[in-house]
Amino acid sequence: MKRSLIFAAAVLATVGMSSIALAQAPKPEDEIRYRQSVMNVIGRSFGALGAMAQGKMAFNAQLAADSAAIVDMMSKLPWNSFGPGTDKGAPTKADMKVWSDADKFKEKADKMKSEVTKLAQVAKGGDEAAIKAQVGETGKACKSCHDDFRLKEFRQ
Amino acid sequence: MKRSLIFAAAVLATVGMSSIALAQAPKPEDEIRYRQSVMNVIGRSFGALGAMAQGKMAFNAQLAADSAAIVDMMSKLPWNSFGPGTDKGAPTKADMKVWSDADKFKEKADKMKSEVTKLAQVAKGGDEAAIKAQVGETGKACKSCHDDFRLKEFRQ
Repeated sequence: MKRSLIFAAAVLATVGMSSIALAQAPKPEDEIRYRQSVMNVIGRSFGALGAMAQGKMAFNAQLAADSAAIVDMMSKLPWNSFGPGTDKGAPTKADMKVWSDADKFKEKADKMKSEVTKLAQVAKGGDEAAIKAQVGETGKACKSCHDDFRLKEFRQ
Repeated sequence: MKRSLIFAAAVLATVGMSSIALAQAPKPEDEIRYRQSVMNVIGRSFGALGAMAQGKMAFNAQLAADSAAIVDMMSKLPWNSFGPGTDKGAPTKADMKVWSDADKFKEKADKMKSEVTKLAQVAKGGDEAAIKAQVGETGKACKSCHDDFRLKEFRQ
């Protein structure tokens, strides 16, 4: 086992994942990129749910459940990457209110997480109308936070 | 229900997620950004596992299991975004061999997925030595594909 661990360390050292450095303090630009990546993954899966809810894509219960599970898992990830010092360092659409009105930002993030958790539960059940209704509730939570805390254009 | 669905559609239309357009054909730049986002999310969670395997971060069984579950879910997502026409359209590190040697790329992607599935299973068990060993195996699969199919610098 010891030899295989040493080998594992050697391999990992060469994989070239800067995130390994996250055992130490993350850089602001890495945090910005990470939260944008998470939001992008959320957007893809929620986009499919939205298209189904709007009748732009045929409803597919399995796709709905899979997409909701992805959104649910991702919904837990970005918030720690809005920490102090991550308001700049790379182009970002995060409004400075994320930091100046942190309580409200947390409240809206929590609302989104709870709607997404409900969505994942409902989606497992396969009830088309219930899923579409909960997609709408979740979309409202997304929009409410974006309206207040996401700029329309990137800033440096 | 009908009114709430109409409202949901109105909300979703204003959330501003370009991914909703994915019900139609995705744009190459969106596919490139999506696969990069997925890889970035994988990198963050695998980075934590790697740091634990290398002893750079204290081993935490819960964090290991959570991180492996994220990597497992994400490992299924990027491959469809390497489709025809996505070799350019935004800066990318994808080597042209992704498309010219697609069988080998698929073989390496499949190897990565199977190692990640094993990792998620082992991580649920909580056995530190077994997890660290499987992190090493998974890292080898990452590296093997990156060596052949990921450029060191972005190209247009």
